[in-house]
Amino acid sequence: MTTDSSSTRVGHAPLKRFIAAALERVGLPQADAEKVGGLMADADLQGSDGHGAIRLPQYVKRIQAGGINTRPDIRIVHERAAMAVVDGDNGMGHLVVSRAAELAIEKARTAGVAWVGARSSNHAGPASLYARMPIAHDMIGLYFAVGNANHLPPWGGTSMLLSTNPIAAGIPAGDEPAVLLDMATTVTAYGKVKAKAKRGEAMPEGWMIDREGRPLLDPQRADEGFLLPIGGHKGYGLALIVGLLAGTLQGAAMGREVVDFNRDHTTPTNTGQAILVIDLKAFGEPQFFKAAVDRLVRDIRDSERLPGVERIFLPGEQSHERRRDYAEAGIPIATNLHAELDALARELGIDPLRTLHNPAAAEA
Amino acid sequence: MTTDSSSTRVGHAPLKRFIAAALERVGLPQADAEKVGGLMADADLQGSDGHGAIRLPQYVKRIQAGGINTRPDIRIVHERAAMAVVDGDNGMGHLVVSRAAELAIEKARTAGVAWVGARSSNHAGPASLYARMPIAHDMIGLYFAVGNANHLPPWGGTSMLLSTNPIAAGIPAGDEPAVLLDMATTVTAYGKVKAKAKRGEAMPEGWMIDREGRPLLDPQRADEGFLLPIGGHKGYGLALIVGLLAGTLQGAAMGREVVDFNRDHTTPTNTGQAILVIDLKAFGEPQFFKAAVDRLVRDIRDSERLPGVERIFLPGEQSHERRRDYAEAGIPIATNLHAELDALARELGIDPLRTLHNPAAAEA
Repeated sequence: MTTDSSSTRVGHAPLKRFIAAALERVGLPQADAEKVGGLMADADLQGSDGHGAIRLPQYVKRIQAGGINTRPDIRIVHERAAMAVVDGDNGMGHLVVSRAAELAIEKARTAGVAWVGARSSNHAGPASLYARMPIAHDMIGLYFAVGNANHLPPWGGTSMLLSTNPIAAGIPAGDEPAVLLDMATTVTAYGKVKAKAKRGEAMPEGWMIDREGRPLLDPQRADEGFLLPIGGHKGYGLALIVGLLAGTLQGAAMGREVVDFNRDHTTPTNTGQAILVIDLKAFGEPQFFKAAVDRLVRDIRDSERLPGVERIFLPGEQSHERRRDYAEAGIPIATNLHAELDALARELGIDPLRTLHNPAAAEA
Repeated sequence: MTTDSSSTRVGHAPLKRFIAAALERVGLPQADAEKVGGLMADADLQGSDGHGAIRLPQYVKRIQAGGINTRPDIRIVHERAAMAVVDGDNGMGHLVVSRAAELAIEKARTAGVAWVGARSSNHAGPASLYARMPIAHDMIGLYFAVGNANHLPPWGGTSMLLSTNPIAAGIPAGDEPAVLLDMATTVTAYGKVKAKAKRGEAMPEGWMIDREGRPLLDPQRADEGFLLPIGGHKGYGLALIVGLLAGTLQGAAMGREVVDFNRDHTTPTNTGQAILVIDLKAFGEPQFFKAAVDRLVRDIRDSERLPGVERIFLPGEQSHERRRDYAEAGIPIATNLHAELDALARELGIDPLRTLHNPAAAEA
């Protein structure tokens, strides 16, 4: 959402190529580098700018430190008609989770519903990328992941045993944009705290508390406190259940086993993710379901608003609009990020990320 | 949690028999009446006292008004290896959802994972009853339901198009009690607002707002406002997704189709529910998973606490303890509820609910 004046615009294709070139240079096979590059550029395209190109320097650092396997043998370790567990062999999370999602889509086509989990995976970008994948097949996607650093204590506690463990859901609609939820189980994501710190702004009450239970408003002091779960004990419960489903069930890290990938660049994270895919065709004619979603979406959008509210949004509607706008006008890349990517390009000896001269032609 | 002095204690078996006798008297076959009676008594036994015997007068009224089918033909209308949709033929929700859960357990045994939804169902009591069912089979249960009255507008809106649509999860543990989450996607459930009104207490800020968006604290004025979702727009998104999964996907009511079963006793509610069952055996040795859950539970329980916090609870731990206590000492039934049940007994010509003379022998 960095659309302020201190940003440049880049096209999706050049961004994808740049990321792929960097990843290939540090050892990924070309096809894998392109796949990851495409997904990371997709993240930026929908405005998930905390999960796109901004992560590239960190991924490169981790790969160079030996913390990610560039030539993984991603394989199925458990399988039944409606489930599988994929071992990612410590490869890039994007490759592992895509594989899991593709397999779940394939299995759901026959079984009606399928659950595929991943272990020995890594950070894979925004949850919504994967929850969206089944939509093109007239299928619903539900996605769960264990976050890559613990910032959440149990309710009433101060030991950070839990992460922001996100939930995402992608629901096909007819003429309307798909309903697409992507939410951390904490009031805010840790990335937003870091962004507040960068901008020198205070956090609103309710985001974090300190070790005495008092509201923590200074993002520079984030290390002294922890994130708050949504709905108090409810969000704590959700974060725990998501972690058990995406982590423990797959044989992946959970609780104190979670590696903080911001501080530790070499220990395999054994990240766990899981996707549930539901084939609409098993439940009747997909067009009836999609027409019902359209009606509901319109009922909600056209419903009465609180004073001062200009518009009621459906989950995913704003990222849908950004995806359309950025595809046309280019993806904004913050100036300081662009400088960081230029430095990375020099370090790796690859071409720098090309800025759009004519933002109206993003794919030029 | 009505353990105050103005309550009497009853045993689980007499409570079940009383409910079953009432339901049989208004037309349910004996086996069905006993099944519903058992599940309603189970709700009270775990302290879900807003969903147990307290609902009996309402159910009886609805049955007598012709709003529930006492002789339903509950049947499968869609089926694949890992899914089914059960049409409840407007029967008691407890019967429909139990059938769905049993079918999902059966299918998960082979497919590894199974999703069974219900439509033309009715209110079925607390979500946790059904999320718990798979646990005895070394399976995980995830349960979603559409609430039976809309109390939640979309985020920023004032039209109550959504309900408190709950999520429940049951996760088997080893020596520890199962992890059992049961949560509305609103900050509080509407039943708790009604309880505050009954006790003449104000609501805390954050439970409800009025049509101007101001905090609503007087529970007597609940009709003038609406519940708030957990985490603001996040809880709105969750309530919507749960409704799409449990309602729309099954061909059940959602959005403006939802019938307020507190005001309307005759229109079929077409309630939707869905359960996902995951067989631990498909993911490896269940004992390894359960041992990992035990470790995590102990890490959480024994972790450092905020000042003033005496104990950190796991989801489901308190209802687990109540279940044990109430099984021994009897289930507390509030005096005014007991009087209502006595009046119902006279009206139906059945034996009144027997109070425990010796609460230590609850099953006598």
